[in-house]
Amino acid sequence: MTDTKQEADFLIHPENTFLYIWQLFMVALVLFSAISLPLYAVFAKDIPVLLIIIVFLFFCDIFINLRVAVKTKNGFCWETAEILKSYRKGFFIPDMIAALPWWLPVALLFKNEEPGIITRFLFLLPLIKILKIGHYLQVFEKSLTINPTIIRLIKFIVLVGIIAHWLASGWVLIGPVKEGLPADDFSKYIRALYWCITTIATVGYGDISPDLSQNHQIIYTMFSMILGVGIYGYVIGNVASLLANIDVAKANFMRRMEEINSFIKNKKIPLEIAQKILDYYNYLWETQQGGNDSQVMNELPQSLSIEVSMYLNKTIIQKVPFFTKMNEVFIREIIMQLEPLIFLPQDYIVRRGEFGDCMFFLSAGSVDVKGSNGELYATLGEGAFFGEMSLIRGEKRNAYIMAREYCDVYRLTKESFDELRRKYPDFDQQVIETVAERDAMNKKKTEKPAAPVKKQ
Amino acid sequence: MTDTKQEADFLIHPENTFLYIWQLFMVALVLFSAISLPLYAVFAKDIPVLLIIIVFLFFCDIFINLRVAVKTKNGFCWETAEILKSYRKGFFIPDMIAALPWWLPVALLFKNEEPGIITRFLFLLPLIKILKIGHYLQVFEKSLTINPTIIRLIKFIVLVGIIAHWLASGWVLIGPVKEGLPADDFSKYIRALYWCITTIATVGYGDISPDLSQNHQIIYTMFSMILGVGIYGYVIGNVASLLANIDVAKANFMRRMEEINSFIKNKKIPLEIAQKILDYYNYLWETQQGGNDSQVMNELPQSLSIEVSMYLNKTIIQKVPFFTKMNEVFIREIIMQLEPLIFLPQDYIVRRGEFGDCMFFLSAGSVDVKGSNGELYATLGEGAFFGEMSLIRGEKRNAYIMAREYCDVYRLTKESFDELRRKYPDFDQQVIETVAERDAMNKKKTEKPAAPVKKQ
Amino acid sequence: MTDTKQEADFLIHPENTFLYIWQLFMVALVLFSAISLPLYAVFAKDIPVLLIIIVFLFFCDIFINLRVAVKTKNGFCWETAEILKSYRKGFFIPDMIAALPWWLPVALLFKNEEPGIITRFLFLLPLIKILKIGHYLQVFEKSLTINPTIIRLIKFIVLVGIIAHWLASGWVLIGPVKEGLPADDFSKYIRALYWCITTIATVGYGDISPDLSQNHQIIYTMFSMILGVGIYGYVIGNVASLLANIDVAKANFMRRMEEINSFIKNKKIPLEIAQKILDYYNYLWETQQGGNDSQVMNELPQSLSIEVSMYLNKTIIQKVPFFTKMNEVFIREIIMQLEPLIFLPQDYIVRRGEFGDCMFFLSAGSVDVKGSNGELYATLGEGAFFGEMSLIRGEKRNAYIMAREYCDVYRLTKESFDELRRKYPDFDQQVIETVAERDAMNKKKTEKPAAPVKKQ
Amino acid sequence: MTDTKQEADFLIHPENTFLYIWQLFMVALVLFSAISLPLYAVFAKDIPVLLIIIVFLFFCDIFINLRVAVKTKNGFCWETAEILKSYRKGFFIPDMIAALPWWLPVALLFKNEEPGIITRFLFLLPLIKILKIGHYLQVFEKSLTINPTIIRLIKFIVLVGIIAHWLASGWVLIGPVKEGLPADDFSKYIRALYWCITTIATVGYGDISPDLSQNHQIIYTMFSMILGVGIYGYVIGNVASLLANIDVAKANFMRRMEEINSFIKNKKIPLEIAQKILDYYNYLWETQQGGNDSQVMNELPQSLSIEVSMYLNKTIIQKVPFFTKMNEVFIREIIMQLEPLIFLPQDYIVRRGEFGDCMFFLSAGSVDVKGSNGELYATLGEGAFFGEMSLIRGEKRNAYIMAREYCDVYRLTKESFDELRRKYPDFDQQVIETVAERDAMNKKKTEKPAAPVKKQ
Repeated sequence: MTDTKQEADFLIHPENTFLYIWQLFMVALVLFSAISLPLYAVFAKDIPVLLIIIVFLFFCDIFINLRVAVKTKNGFCWETAEILKSYRKGFFIPDMIAALPWWLPVALLFKNEEPGIITRFLFLLPLIKILKIGHYLQVFEKSLTINPTIIRLIKFIVLVGIIAHWLASGWVLIGPVKEGLPADDFSKYIRALYWCITTIATVGYGDISPDLSQNHQIIYTMFSMILGVGIYGYVIGNVASLLANIDVAKANFMRRMEEINSFIKNKKIPLEIAQKILDYYNYLWETQQGGNDSQVMNELPQSLSIEVSMYLNKTIIQKVPFFTKMNEVFIREIIMQLEPLIFLPQDYIVRRGEFGDCMFFLSAGSVDVKGSNGELYATLGEGAFFGEMSLIRGEKRNAYIMAREYCDVYRLTKESFDELRRKYPDFDQQVIETVAERDAMNKKKTEKPAAPVKKQ
Repeated sequence: MTDTKQEADFLIHPENTFLYIWQLFMVALVLFSAISLPLYAVFAKDIPVLLIIIVFLFFCDIFINLRVAVKTKNGFCWETAEILKSYRKGFFIPDMIAALPWWLPVALLFKNEEPGIITRFLFLLPLIKILKIGHYLQVFEKSLTINPTIIRLIKFIVLVGIIAHWLASGWVLIGPVKEGLPADDFSKYIRALYWCITTIATVGYGDISPDLSQNHQIIYTMFSMILGVGIYGYVIGNVASLLANIDVAKANFMRRMEEINSFIKNKKIPLEIAQKILDYYNYLWETQQGGNDSQVMNELPQSLSIEVSMYLNKTIIQKVPFFTKMNEVFIREIIMQLEPLIFLPQDYIVRRGEFGDCMFFLSAGSVDVKGSNGELYATLGEGAFFGEMSLIRGEKRNAYIMAREYCDVYRLTKESFDELRRKYPDFDQQVIETVAERDAMNKKKTEKPAAPVKKQ
Repeated sequence: MTDTKQEADFLIHPENTFLYIWQLFMVALVLFSAISLPLYAVFAKDIPVLLIIIVFLFFCDIFINLRVAVKTKNGFCWETAEILKSYRKGFFIPDMIAALPWWLPVALLFKNEEPGIITRFLFLLPLIKILKIGHYLQVFEKSLTINPTIIRLIKFIVLVGIIAHWLASGWVLIGPVKEGLPADDFSKYIRALYWCITTIATVGYGDISPDLSQNHQIIYTMFSMILGVGIYGYVIGNVASLLANIDVAKANFMRRMEEINSFIKNKKIPLEIAQKILDYYNYLWETQQGGNDSQVMNELPQSLSIEVSMYLNKTIIQKVPFFTKMNEVFIREIIMQLEPLIFLPQDYIVRRGEFGDCMFFLSAGSVDVKGSNGELYATLGEGAFFGEMSLIRGEKRNAYIMAREYCDVYRLTKESFDELRRKYPDFDQQVIETVAERDAMNKKKTEKPAAPVKKQ
Repeated sequence: MTDTKQEADFLIHPENTFLYIWQLFMVALVLFSAISLPLYAVFAKDIPVLLIIIVFLFFCDIFINLRVAVKTKNGFCWETAEILKSYRKGFFIPDMIAALPWWLPVALLFKNEEPGIITRFLFLLPLIKILKIGHYLQVFEKSLTINPTIIRLIKFIVLVGIIAHWLASGWVLIGPVKEGLPADDFSKYIRALYWCITTIATVGYGDISPDLSQNHQIIYTMFSMILGVGIYGYVIGNVASLLANIDVAKANFMRRMEEINSFIKNKKIPLEIAQKILDYYNYLWETQQGGNDSQVMNELPQSLSIEVSMYLNKTIIQKVPFFTKMNEVFIREIIMQLEPLIFLPQDYIVRRGEFGDCMFFLSAGSVDVKGSNGELYATLGEGAFFGEMSLIRGEKRNAYIMAREYCDVYRLTKESFDELRRKYPDFDQQVIETVAERDAMNKKKTEKPAAPVKKQ
């Protein structure tokens, strides 16, 4: 995966930091142009200095584009010819149109005069660069972990803002002139923007409307209505679904809660049970954001899935004593075998006399170990494990284990357990030792059952 | 799960009832402030007494917040230092801003005068408390079984209402003054609210609109349009989907009915069969609200799932004679084994001569027991069970059993049945006795088949 | 399922035809009242005769309601006391309010005068009956196979229509009076309705708007905007999703086609294969409306599912010679075993030399039976069956069978086949005979392969 | 599938190219009529020539329709009687109405005069042909691979456009005449269209509105608002969902990315792992457009599914040396057995010492073959295969194979492999030879491990 970079001849690697910054700057510059150029085209009394700077920076962009290596299937290509060919197929022509001072000849011809209608139109040519903004943004979208929905929301708002600004700028030129109103540039623009927003938002007070004897004003207004109202309606229609998607996990959880509510209401579940169900889901949301990520995990390729599992469960693994000594290969294997379960307060995790086919690791919460008469043998906390006794000796469970509060538990079945012990003899050894230790401890407890040991 | 409460030093448990009531009162107070403060800011001739009361109550809220124990991972913390630290990270600063009478110095300086523009603005500072309303509501949302969709609908309506009120209050101050209209406060506010609603709902009559020579009026109107119309559009867009979700079970059922209708139409199912299908779904809706709750049940942890099952099926269990005598552990186990089925009128549940692999419990409806020539042996009603004969003796079914009307039936398969008898010898005993009884009864019936016994 | 009807004392069975017609008439009458009563309240110069008739008919409705047997869990109850009790819990009070001529005392008091504002308001009281319209409609919705989406669409339109009518009627009373406009009732109402629609649809020309010096007009307008615009927005938002659901099968098919299109485009599937895929889906739509009804079928109870299957496949069953002679029990069983398949033109259904594990029934289309050198043995049409030879003798397929066009084929696997032959000896016999016949025919063909027999 | 065409008597095959062109022309003509006829009806001073031409062409359409063979279940029917019968059931009556010059008698009666209101109305009769446009379009929709969503979008836009045009044309006739405005036809139409768009888009400036003393203008405006606003709202509501469906694969991928983002955020996955996950999905999108096409593939009938698989995987097949020599039947079979997998850079595909149960074909990317001490034996590129050694000899893997970059790999399990070797002896032979070759090569490499062979 190492790429040989040739930075001679000022060639730039496509993932170079300078290039990132330049592209970010270009995005800002294009947005600035989208706002300033229409204003110049409408209000400028002279060739604006900023316009010259913008055109110059767009010119620089062409040069930089010609120095960037091309990404191919087999890595990167540093040949100038290849770069030029790839650029010509891409944004070369719009880049050239944006970077050339088309207004220069006209301005030189009629110098000392206020720019005419054609010059003003030529001011707008660099706006073609706006076509490239999606191309620039792609780079950032890929490498950032920003919520894609928020990116789309911002795009929508910027889009509506720019279109409103353009329509307003056009209205300044084309719209009717009312007497008795302030005629400074700012007031004229504000009134045009006001007309535009009143129209786009379909409020339509009617205090500013085209002169009905001027067909070009009528046509411009119709065009604004069709474009503006269409985009506005589309954006409003989208915003609802976009906002709903900003936190998909929350939205899914809300939908599930609605189903649960409907279930409770239709089945007339009594309040006591209903409250337990709601508590359970609130616990699920607070600790696991609604759980049920198995779908996401299953979609990932195995190596990534293990990596994520290891990260998520590293706390439980670090807590269980005989896991900490095992090597990473073993940890990876055991993690894929663990099955997460949730127990409610007062739930029996293990019942005395049952035939056990699994052991448990307590990831969160605490449990009581009890005898058949309800006497408390011990209280186990996070990181404890239990149920392994019958698993090893093939006996029935010899105690009750009851959740004291909400417990996150991982279950390891006998099949997986036997498989792991067979595969990893050192793990087998450790299990045997721990069991012996535990036996000794239980023996002591059975002798003085009145004093339950709290082991947290 | 018992928590040691220390109510010395007037410390309050976070789940204390008084705290609940106080928080409910604060929600009401904040909403009241959101309505009254802007009106004071616009119309007040003096420092309003109510404003002083509001600020005082907000001040009390700070003290109460400082007395509430902090919820931590390991229970509750009653240390004042810890509470203060947790409060400082949370809403301490907005609470302080809301609880201080910022207008006091200004009011003292210019006493006996009507409050100036700055004082009026300072009146609005307690509104910062509105940020905390979500925090207060969270408590109630968790513990109530109110439909979350209705909560969201109410939130939307309150939000739109408050924004409309604020925009209208601002318009009273900033809007144009038309001559010849009543100038009392109420009329001025009503006209401003009318302008606001006309604008937000995008009706835009244009009878009230900004004075085009006043840029600040134009800008305020643009701001109102963007904010108000955006929120209005968003709310309308949401209301449709919210209303659709108020009863998810009904909505899902409607969707299924549309599929059924489409199926019937496209396949040209004849009217007679179509009517049967529609009847079946109507029955399903009326008795089980569309059925198919298995998804919800499967998501619940096992202990909750059993609890809900026991609640839902307690009637069937109470009806079957030999279940009522069994202990709860047995009942729990059998409930998880039962499989619900629905039979249509005239459907054969059991056919004579078939090899039986299950028995049935009749939960609702009634069935006819018939011989091979259609002679009626018996009619069984709710709580009856049948089909157990061949199950026990390994013979073929010796009668036809036909549903008289829609029947809700629970099926218990031979595997589950044998498992249960093996596990629970007293159940086994009871089954044997009941079968003997039934045999005797059948014998009698076969002797006089003309008089079918109706057993309901 | 037969109910003993007691039609003495003029008691009516709830599913009586006369009751159906009466309820239908009441729906029409309530809708008529919703339109006419507001008009009377606004324009009437006298007590309108129609109002008296409406009230009288509503009075009759009470009597009829008191004669209808009550539906209970155990059938129908014909006790008058029980009916009265059930009615009192239901719509008795609104029915009484609607059926009493409240305006009578007022009208008698001020007779010979034009009805006053109170009388006019009392005219509206029968409108309370509109609450019962949902109750009436429920009966029809259940028993009709009308698309529930269309019913909801009509409900929405009627709802918006009635609200617009009511708001307009109110505006006639309360709205401003402009001079110089025609003052006849019709013109007044038309202008009010025009104002209402202009407002509800948010167009808001502003040519009719409240007199800003009249607070009650402003408040009425605000109320109209909030109610009308809210409902309008809600309806428009719903109509799109309702229209999408009118034909769910079509909508699902469209969505699948979009996925197919996306698949073809993204994978750059060449045109030739893409055309085949699209042809296949068009065939699927035309013959089976998109197929994939297995979900609907699985949801139905078994007896209904078999009934539908028998209806859908009765043609194939009637076509296959040895099925027609079998009894219904056999037909039911075989239908549940058949698996539908579609073959494209030129597809091989059976290949010579393969080991066969199933036979096929040709439901639609035609196939060629070919030898290993491509010589045509026979062409089989609808109702033909093939592939049974190897199935019976345990040999390899001895011919190629190729679809000539799109073929709907049902597959019967060896397991199901053997099971059926074992269960039904007469079927076994028939199969053996048919095979012998076929052998003889094939022998003849092999002797003169130049003349393929076309058997349609 | 060959149809005998009888083109005598000028009968036309329904899939004839000329017919296609004619139908395309008719679509264009109908759309042109929809625009021009209302204009004629409003502005024409005389019988327009174009109208005569349109009617004549519609007349031709009837003749052509009478010459087109009818598609039946059993192919095509060329009987004139049958064609006529089928046509009479279809569009014969609307076609006749559209094709007759109804205005002729009226025009002849009052010749030399401007057409009266009745004549003008008769001008509109050919518009009935618009009913048939769906019928014409069906043909093209079926045979083209244009995105159905784009077709629906265009239909919506054309529909709204035509309705706006018709409403505007009506307004020219019926609307109020304002003095002082240009009265030429173009200006009149532009103002009417402006009124129409202002109304439909709910902007409603109010500069053009009905004369309130003219009830027919008010009613026309109400009708326009209900129709126009309804359709506009419906279209805007649909456009959002339509645009979302233009690229279903992209939309599904976006939704999945939102879930991934939500997962990363809620689980607080560290940046390093999160970046890996995002990279993986970006790779998935770029190479396979989001993968997971198995659903589409499963829905296709087997023969089509194989054809698509062969197309998609033909590159991998062409690359693997011993596949190229195999015949198509073998290729088809092996393709159905291959299971696609993706490995991330640095992932181990094969670990030394593991017991292998599958072999791999490298479709894209490159892998390193390494010894137990990390020494590089070889680097394999696209088209390479590995892991077959242990598969054949039942030994453990004797090397590590690690992905150098993202690798698209196809896995062939031992079961499928053994099955294929048993079925295809020549394939078996080829495998044995290739293994021998590889052994020899490995031997060489082990002798000089310092010089890893790069085989691309």
